[in-house]
Amino acid sequence: MIKKISVIGGDLRIVKLLEMLAKDEYEICTYGLEKIENINSVKKCKTLQETVQDADIVIGPIPITSDNTNVNAPFSEKIITLNELATNIKGKKIIAGSIKREFYELSNDNKIETIDLLNREELAVLNAISTAEGAIQIAMEETIKTIHNSNVLILGFGRIGKVLAKMLQGVGANVYCEARKNVDLAWIRAYGYIPIHQKEIEKQIDKYDIIMNTIPSMILDKQILKKVSKNCVIIDLASNPGGVDRQEAKKLGIKVIWALSLPGKVAPLTSAEYIKDTIYNIFEEL
Amino acid sequence: MIKKISVIGGDLRIVKLLEMLAKDEYEICTYGLEKIENINSVKKCKTLQETVQDADIVIGPIPITSDNTNVNAPFSEKIITLNELATNIKGKKIIAGSIKREFYELSNDNKIETIDLLNREELAVLNAISTAEGAIQIAMEETIKTIHNSNVLILGFGRIGKVLAKMLQGVGANVYCEARKNVDLAWIRAYGYIPIHQKEIEKQIDKYDIIMNTIPSMILDKQILKKVSKNCVIIDLASNPGGVDRQEAKKLGIKVIWALSLPGKVAPLTSAEYIKDTIYNIFEEL
Amino acid sequence: MIKKISVIGGDLRIVKLLEMLAKDEYEICTYGLEKIENINSVKKCKTLQETVQDADIVIGPIPITSDNTNVNAPFSEKIITLNELATNIKGKKIIAGSIKREFYELSNDNKIETIDLLNREELAVLNAISTAEGAIQIAMEETIKTIHNSNVLILGFGRIGKVLAKMLQGVGANVYCEARKNVDLAWIRAYGYIPIHQKEIEKQIDKYDIIMNTIPSMILDKQILKKVSKNCVIIDLASNPGGVDRQEAKKLGIKVIWALSLPGKVAPLTSAEYIKDTIYNIFEEL
Amino acid sequence: MIKKISVIGGDLRIVKLLEMLAKDEYEICTYGLEKIENINSVKKCKTLQETVQDADIVIGPIPITSDNTNVNAPFSEKIITLNELATNIKGKKIIAGSIKREFYELSNDNKIETIDLLNREELAVLNAISTAEGAIQIAMEETIKTIHNSNVLILGFGRIGKVLAKMLQGVGANVYCEARKNVDLAWIRAYGYIPIHQKEIEKQIDKYDIIMNTIPSMILDKQILKKVSKNCVIIDLASNPGGVDRQEAKKLGIKVIWALSLPGKVAPLTSAEYIKDTIYNIFEEL
Repeated sequence: MIKKISVIGGDLRIVKLLEMLAKDEYEICTYGLEKIENINSVKKCKTLQETVQDADIVIGPIPITSDNTNVNAPFSEKIITLNELATNIKGKKIIAGSIKREFYELSNDNKIETIDLLNREELAVLNAISTAEGAIQIAMEETIKTIHNSNVLILGFGRIGKVLAKMLQGVGANVYCEARKNVDLAWIRAYGYIPIHQKEIEKQIDKYDIIMNTIPSMILDKQILKKVSKNCVIIDLASNPGGVDRQEAKKLGIKVIWALSLPGKVAPLTSAEYIKDTIYNIFEEL
Repeated sequence: MIKKISVIGGDLRIVKLLEMLAKDEYEICTYGLEKIENINSVKKCKTLQETVQDADIVIGPIPITSDNTNVNAPFSEKIITLNELATNIKGKKIIAGSIKREFYELSNDNKIETIDLLNREELAVLNAISTAEGAIQIAMEETIKTIHNSNVLILGFGRIGKVLAKMLQGVGANVYCEARKNVDLAWIRAYGYIPIHQKEIEKQIDKYDIIMNTIPSMILDKQILKKVSKNCVIIDLASNPGGVDRQEAKKLGIKVIWALSLPGKVAPLTSAEYIKDTIYNIFEEL
Repeated sequence: MIKKISVIGGDLRIVKLLEMLAKDEYEICTYGLEKIENINSVKKCKTLQETVQDADIVIGPIPITSDNTNVNAPFSEKIITLNELATNIKGKKIIAGSIKREFYELSNDNKIETIDLLNREELAVLNAISTAEGAIQIAMEETIKTIHNSNVLILGFGRIGKVLAKMLQGVGANVYCEARKNVDLAWIRAYGYIPIHQKEIEKQIDKYDIIMNTIPSMILDKQILKKVSKNCVIIDLASNPGGVDRQEAKKLGIKVIWALSLPGKVAPLTSAEYIKDTIYNIFEEL
Repeated sequence: MIKKISVIGGDLRIVKLLEMLAKDEYEICTYGLEKIENINSVKKCKTLQETVQDADIVIGPIPITSDNTNVNAPFSEKIITLNELATNIKGKKIIAGSIKREFYELSNDNKIETIDLLNREELAVLNAISTAEGAIQIAMEETIKTIHNSNVLILGFGRIGKVLAKMLQGVGANVYCEARKNVDLAWIRAYGYIPIHQKEIEKQIDKYDIIMNTIPSMILDKQILKKVSKNCVIIDLASNPGGVDRQEAKKLGIKVIWALSLPGKVAPLTSAEYIKDTIYNIFEEL
């Protein structure tokens, strides 16, 4: 059973997480977080070694690093290298986000068991909630119409598409969902949205006030963009390279907002809660 | 491209399907449906051979047989054996439902390409709509409370569970969804229902006015039933053997309705539409 | 403060109400309910006089009478005249339903304060929930399509129309609401239904699968019925004389269900709860 | 029948309205709008006199004036006094917004028939949609949680309260609605929100993440604010003087956003559509 937790580096979500873990009476030592306000019963340690001593598990940042060399620690002035982290937590378990090859190799060398939060499907679902809400906020800010009674096209009916569709319908939009697979189109009907088969996406594409893309490949290309209304606002939620020919859109005078990493930005507190719930699920499985 | 279709046997859904296919200007010959009213431009043939001649595809009943010997043909006084069917459609394609080993063997012998409608995932999703609505109708009929503001527990968050939850919430129920996997529990939260982990199902199980089961294995066993409210109505939607200890429930005076094959019963016309859409998807893939 | 309550006559809803009042620790005497099962701490009295003695308030049936002469008492073999009731509760307060001129005159003569439950606006709203749910149950039973994705027209956007629209949308219907006033049409838009101005009701009236009427005056007359689809099911929820030319509908082969007094029929337990809540509101105002 | 329309002064909503009116083939002359881009078939007149000549109706700004002296004309460098306007449209009808005593007197003197858009109930309902959506946008911007699964209290169940509740529930909030009247509390139950009687507002008021006020009188006073969570965000939608003791809130460190006139700010295009629809209703009634 987990009792003592080390928390190393991390952003505002990790800080909020600390507060929740402390409330649930875990014994917590932190490192690389010296600039945050003191939290009751959370100890700021002086060395990495001291921090991880006796720890049942280590929690690292999300993402664990943003430069492939050092631990991501915006609330610290210290430089903690991935290497330093790895050698100090030898033989332990670490939960962190977006772990890449470099750290996996270090973990292998040091017999560290790594658990990448972003591989947890339940967290991906929960993050879709924050992403959808962030996308709706952007849509509200960037349009001069209400979302209520607007025609909104969602490209892709995966996690984010599903939650987006539900929320947009909840606000009163006319929700059109694009998908390629018949089974997805059946789900779209079951949920009461208007199904658009990928093959028919170009037809009537001029009628949308808002298009939200969740597909990480070029879907709104030159040819399609030409038919989109000049007043349409496109919100691209797909990770690199996105799904919109942004240059062409610019040329055509169509507004495109490429919105990434929304959960941490629009709802850090909720994100921290979701991370906590996921970590507790991991604890149960250990 | 499909132009000429043979339809052999089948129930009310097949009759409604015939009307729709005729409207879409397919050339249609039927056999084993001689008792239905005449439909414009649908030909009733005298022999099986004549029926299938030149047919681009054959559509059979759902299920194709109910006795493993003869074709399911409630609108006919003829007896058509599976064997007779198979030898007559040699080398052709047949779309039907619930095809079992016997007919697969015959198909193999006669080089028939079989397509089982009930293996089509999109039809399973669409049928979940009818099933859910049928279950709600039963709940309305069998209780002396409104579903609005009732506590309803749904066991299982698969296709039927998902559609049921949405509709019950739409009528105003307090919807609790049971699941085992963390990712399903995350979806339940995302959709705004109250998640119940399978491990905690016994806790507060006395508070439900209605329990709807979709899991085809004994979940409401003796031990759990004892804690269920005597006023609770249980609707079991799971196929054989169901998920409720019906004997124990009877002993305890708890009402259990075991409701199978709802789509064809509560909404044959809608079922026919879904079958048509699925068949058209199949046509596209041929 | 109300402590002692007399309950005289009444149907299943009154029986369920008795159980709830007893649970809330009121002291209760009944008369004209001798055939019901015993309820803990509810006393069955032998005479009307004994029943009402010291009572802080009297609760009568809903409706108080069905023949304008005797108290409505289906769970009794006694005959209790309205006159007998009135003379026995002289100077007291009585809460009952559907009080007509006869009893008002008796009340006046006997200085009885009468409170008609059916004049309570909050009860009318709550009863609209049961009525709407009952109407949906009927629609499910009487059609061979799912309500999901059916075109449903609601005539009138009063209490029942509003709740119906919400629930039907919740089940996935395409909801059209007819109204006459611009402000009602604005509300219909706000709630996300499709507004139909009364003047335009005839246009496209053939497209509806279900029509639900809540307006108590002839709205679906000969001329309009002729344009309604033969497959349409009409559910008339309007009190006498209803809003449908039933003879003409019969001639045309259109199914009409005239559904009255649904709350007591489809959800007597919920009705009893609503009555209890309304009675408690009355207690607060005394 | 209205054919020729004069439009004098007005903000972005009036400009968008002009485009819509032009599309519907009205003959339009404008004055006090010389800085807007040219709109096909909309004539910019040189004098007020020329503008209104032969006009069947005059449309003025919303509000008609912001200083009680001159016509509200942000897209003009001209000064048009109310007096000048009135003498020029003698004997005609004018539709405008927020007409006050000064202009009514001028209208009386000049036999002008005035119609105040803001007295139109249907426009008030439609504007509630934009207001609600604007309030939700603010809530999303000002909190570090998702609205999904947040506890939101709405004070007042009038037009804005009703639309807000529906939308917030649509995004997944736990919606609590405060009201004073039993009938409103019944509606709140019917719609599936959690009713809070005004008398019980203080109880558990610390549990809300967001409080939205629509009541234009001091409801969140010192005493209540003390019990509100420090992390709660209060959005006050009530017109002057609002419903929150803003000084006290500041002292306590509770964030209060006083958000007025949202429709024109967050959704000018939709507002213009609503104004157009209302004007067309007025045309029908003339």
